[in-house]
Formats: sequence, structure tokens, C-alpha cells
Amino acid sequence: MRAVGMVVEFNPFHNGHRYYVRQAKAQTEADVAVAVMSGNFTQRGEPTILDKWARTRAALANGVDLVVELPVFYACQPAHRFAAGALRLLNELGVSAVAFGAEHPQWDFAQLVRATADLDQATLKRYTATYATQFNDQLAQRTGVSLQAPNDILAFAYTKAARAHNYQFDLQPIQRVASDYHDQVIKGAIASASAIRQAVQDGEDYRQAVPVATDHELAGISQVPSWGQLYPMLRNQLIQAPVDQLCQTYQMAEGLEYRMKEFAERSLDFAHFIHGIKTKRYTYAHLIRLCLYATLQMREEELGDQVRHPYLHILGFTPQGQAYLHQVKKTVGVPMFTKVSQEMKDGLCRLDYRAGKLYQAFTPVEQDLKHAPVIRR
Amino acid sequence: MRAVGMVVEFNPFHNGHRYYVRQAKAQTEADVAVAVMSGNFTQRGEPTILDKWARTRAALANGVDLVVELPVFYACQPAHRFAAGALRLLNELGVSAVAFGAEHPQWDFAQLVRATADLDQATLKRYTATYATQFNDQLAQRTGVSLQAPNDILAFAYTKAARAHNYQFDLQPIQRVASDYHDQVIKGAIASASAIRQAVQDGEDYRQAVPVATDHELAGISQVPSWGQLYPMLRNQLIQAPVDQLCQTYQMAEGLEYRMKEFAERSLDFAHFIHGIKTKRYTYAHLIRLCLYATLQMREEELGDQVRHPYLHILGFTPQGQAYLHQVKKTVGVPMFTKVSQEMKDGLCRLDYRAGKLYQAFTPVEQDLKHAPVIRR
Repeated sequence: MRAVGMVVEFNPFHNGHRYYVRQAKAQTEADVAVAVMSGNFTQRGEPTILDKWARTRAALANGVDLVVELPVFYACQPAHRFAAGALRLLNELGVSAVAFGAEHPQWDFAQLVRATADLDQATLKRYTATYATQFNDQLAQRTGVSLQAPNDILAFAYTKAARAHNYQFDLQPIQRVASDYHDQVIKGAIASASAIRQAVQDGEDYRQAVPVATDHELAGISQVPSWGQLYPMLRNQLIQAPVDQLCQTYQMAEGLEYRMKEFAERSLDFAHFIHGIKTKRYTYAHLIRLCLYATLQMREEELGDQVRHPYLHILGFTPQGQAYLHQVKKTVGVPMFTKVSQEMKDGLCRLDYRAGKLYQAFTPVEQDLKHAPVIRR
Repeated sequence: MRAVGMVVEFNPFHNGHRYYVRQAKAQTEADVAVAVMSGNFTQRGEPTILDKWARTRAALANGVDLVVELPVFYACQPAHRFAAGALRLLNELGVSAVAFGAEHPQWDFAQLVRATADLDQATLKRYTATYATQFNDQLAQRTGVSLQAPNDILAFAYTKAARAHNYQFDLQPIQRVASDYHDQVIKGAIASASAIRQAVQDGEDYRQAVPVATDHELAGISQVPSWGQLYPMLRNQLIQAPVDQLCQTYQMAEGLEYRMKEFAERSLDFAHFIHGIKTKRYTYAHLIRLCLYATLQMREEELGDQVRHPYLHILGFTPQGQAYLHQVKKTVGVPMFTKVSQEMKDGLCRLDYRAGKLYQAFTPVEQDLKHAPVIRR
């Protein structure tokens, strides 16, 4: 059996995702579609609209055969670390190809990667602009290409990671269809995930844009998860923890611990807080991820330790997905499991477990410990 | 001018308190009544129904002349530390007498103190009963007196603290009137504070039991503060902090850090959590205080440092109270101030400040920084 891998958030799973899964399978002549999916927090550090189990159910009902969790220490990271972590897991799973959406699939991403090989965080040191802006300025000067669209940025990151590790699977960019990522209105059967979340938030009809399984899951939520609801926990941590402890938080640098503490003391809501701490040096995505790291009390050394010990937490599968797992299980070189044990929740999976406990602000469902995988027959 | 001191919570200020203030002034022939009042958390570690400013306003409108904050590191403590901290501040304020309510004011508390001088935490080591129970068993054996009622217990603690420090002021027990402390129904003009809080919670009429000023303040609250609303912050701290950090929390002993972490992971609400961690060894009051210490990330050494540096934060005064302050200010031996400065919020008053930030779960009002005292003309 041949598998095509995908790196996804499915936040929530919509008609565009269904199209993309079909295209991925067709274009790579794959028998099974394997999704490495973010758990309960997105790359931007935001809580997902549905928990990972609901999103797994919707995906398995719509063409995906196997869903594996992208652990929080890979999932809530800038594009290059997110992509590298996800491809590492797909490589372990022995996929023949990795498909990804791109706004410009015709671009030669390998060429863009070669042209910018010498640019890293250390060589880009202007403190008045984000790293992404500085990188893009350089890329445009050298190649004439401006890497702005979010899926193009990820496509670049996948290409770079695959080359760096000499992965043997094919890379298959797929043209993104119809709606713009930032489009906030549902106009037809294909809408952006953010437009769908907005419609749910506003109590407007989103059903034309999602498959039945997603509609069914969304009907069960009473509030759209957001940082507004997590802010009391973040605020308390920023206020109560001494700065010498806060500065041990992963990615807490350049005095941000003082700035975050100061604005936490002054801000009673998240919007006020996050606008308060924003500077030209950091993107909102970077700062929101930092909020998540701080709330999870994720320390630099803990994250390093976790990143060195990846694993495959199987969230669900179809009969085809199960057959594929059977085929590859002997060649998988990292721990692979369908249930988180008592020992794993305090060890291997401790950051996912803690992120799941935080996500219980939105659901009474236990997210990890002894949770059975979704089995679609 | 002669002053009578009182140690109070005024949670909320009710008709019984008004009677008690008058009695205290009359029986000690005092010109002014000075109240050392807990801030935003009670001795049991619970958030107060009204913030310290609202409670100060009500007190000053009903016979109290000067209100000083009992800092959180004294206020949220078992009776002996609570009493010792409060009397230390009243002694600094040069009061002539200290009045306190007691269920049995006729008892010879000095004699009870002498009879139990050798009993401390170290000599009472049965792990199947709380310290209070063991102490009481011994006291009853030696004197025939059973110290059960909450105000009798505090009366004992005041007497013990005053003797230990050889304070020169008189001690004036005052008979508690009418309602039982634990009485949960309002039957007349005198009701217990807990009955009044329950009536507010249930939306029932409590006005016969409180002066107009308290009624006015209670009309402004939208919810009765409780640990139910603070639990998300406590839970997150217990889950996210490693045990080697949790065990540095003040009073966290005998593996309670593991027990609290375990039940935090399993409990989605405070009632479930607190019942889960209860053992015969600890009272609910002890455990709820520990919840507060953990949420405030109050460490053993930090508390020790704070207790060694008391201060007098003046919350409000009448013209009489102001005149008294003028009279005593030269003899006060600890810092005395009416406003918390930027420097003090991170230094001298840091625990009160952090407790005030936690209390903002219930009110948008800044509790400390630059808050002006209540001045009643």
C-alpha cells in the first residue's frame, strides 16, 4: 500500500479539506491518506474550535484513513519547526509522498530554499522588524519571489525540511482553491476555516461549507474556544510567578517577561493584553504562542527534551488506515501507541497531556489519559 | 484620645458588627474604634463578598473610625498566627484596649492559655486527627473547657499572643449576641455573616440584617465571590507546575503536592477537588488556605520574609480616626501609608498586591496600586 501524508489542523474540517484529501490521493496514486494533525492548539497558539477527537471523527468520515497527533511541542511553533516536526513523523510512517496546499504550487520551492540557505535568525538582526519580514526582504531581492501567503510559507518550510533530512518521499504541492485564507465570509461550498469559525461565533449558517460530520460536531459546542477564556490562567501565572521563573519559559527573551507581567497586571481582558505587549519585533502569532508556553509553564529545557523524543499518538483510523499501520509498524523507529497510559501522561506525552488539561476550559472530555482511538468501520 | 482596637473581617459588615463596635467603645471608654480588617481574603482563605474598599466604606459609616488592612500573610492563617499578626499591628497603633467577641466571655482565657502552654504542633503528632482536635482533647482533659466556638478560639489566641509579647493594652471580651455563627437563616435584625452571604447568593432579602451602607455596597455586586470562580487558576497552577516547584509552596507538606496535582487533573470543579483532597489530618480551612497559597505561588521563604516586615496600610478614616493617626504617627515603628506606590507593589506589599490581582476575578477595581484611602467627613 502507498500512503500520502498531509500536515493539517482541520480547524474545523471543511469542504476545501475534503477536496484536498481527494486530490492528494489522486495526484500521488496513494491507497491511504495519512494526516498528521495538530492536537488542541493551532500553529498560532490558539485553541482549536473542536477538540482533536471531534476533528479526527470528521476527517475519518471524509477520506482520511489515519490521523496521528502532531504533538504540541511541534504544532505550536513557527513554520520551519512546525514543518520539520511534522515531516519527521510522516517519514517515520513511511509515506510515499507528502501533499500540501500552496497558493503558488508552480513555484520551484527547492530553488527558493537554495537561494536563502545562508539566512538564519542570527544573520537577520534588525530589531525593528520581525524575522519573517527581514527574511522576505532578502528572498525578494535574490529571487523576485515574495513569500507572503501562509500555505506558500509552509510549502517552503516542507521543502526545506525534506531537503535537510534527505527524505525520500515525493513532495506534491496542490493548488489551493477558491476562498482566500483571510476571507471572512462564506460565499459557497468552499470557505476558509476562519470564515467558518467566525460564522459559528456569530451564530450564522456555515453548513454549506462543511461536510455533515463537521456540522454534527459543531452542533455540540456551546462556545467557540478562544484566548479570552484562557486569559485568567495566563494572567495569574504572569502575575504570581517571579520574573526569574518567567524568564525560564520557552522563547521568553529580551525582557518580554517584564513586559508581559506589566501588561497582565494592567489588563483585565486578553485583547487589551495582547495589543499592549505587541511590538514591531514580534508577530502576534509569536506572542500568542508565547502566551501558550507561559500558561503551560513550558520551560526551555523541557521543550528541548520533548523535541528529542518524538512519538506517534494514533488518534484514529479506518480499516484501510489500520491495514497500513499493520504494514509499517515494524519499520517505525519511534514509540507508536493508541492510548496514553498513566506513565506516559507524566512522561513521554506530558506536554500534550498538560495542553489537554488546559483545553478542558472548553470541554469536560478527558483529552488523553486512556482515551480510546476513533475507529471508523 | 483613647482607642479600642478590633480584629475584623466584616464579611459583610452587619448589624451585629455595629452593635459590637458600640459595645467596644462603651465598655473600654474609647474615643475611637480602630479596626484591623482582613483584605480581600478571609481567615479560611475564601474571597470576601465585597472588596476591602466597600467593606471599609460600610464600617466607617457605622461607628468605626479607622480601618487598617490586615495583610494577607497574617489574614489567611490559622487562629494563632492570625491573632498574633493582628495584635502586633494594633500594638503599633497604640490602642488602649482590644475588644473581641466571644461565645463565652466569662471564661478565664489567661488561665486556659497557661494550662496549655506546653502544647504545640510538635507535641501533637497523631496523623489521624487535625491539630485543633488534638489540642482540644488535651485542653478539655486539663481544664474541663471545650474550645469549640470560633470566637472563643480567637479569644484564646488573642490572649495567648498578648501575654507572649507582654502587650500593655487591656483585653475586653464582648458577649456575642443572638445568632449562631453557623446559623444559615436570617430571623431578625441580627444574623450571621454567613447567613447574609447565603441570602445574597440565593437572591433573598437580607436588608433587615445589615445597615444601609452595606445594602448599598451589596447592590453593586453581580456574583458572590467563591473559589468556584478562582478554581481555573488554581487548577492550572497545580497541573502545569512541576511537583518540585509546588512543594516549595508555603505549608505544602507531606506529599500534599502530589495529592493536589492528582485531584486537580481529575476535577473540573472546586467542590469535587476540595472533597477529593480532604483527609482526617487537615481541616477544610487549612486546605482552602493552601489553595490560596498555591494560586498566589506563595513560597515558604517569601512568606517568612513578609511576616518579618509588617506595615500599616490605612484603608480609610473618619475625622476622629484622622486625629488619632496624627496623635500616634510618631510612635508607630513600622511603615504606615495611605497609598501603595509602584515600588511598594513589587516590594513591601507584593503579596497583598498579588492577592488583589487575583481578586480582580470579581471586580475590575484596582485593589492597591495608587488606590486612595476612603475618607469619611
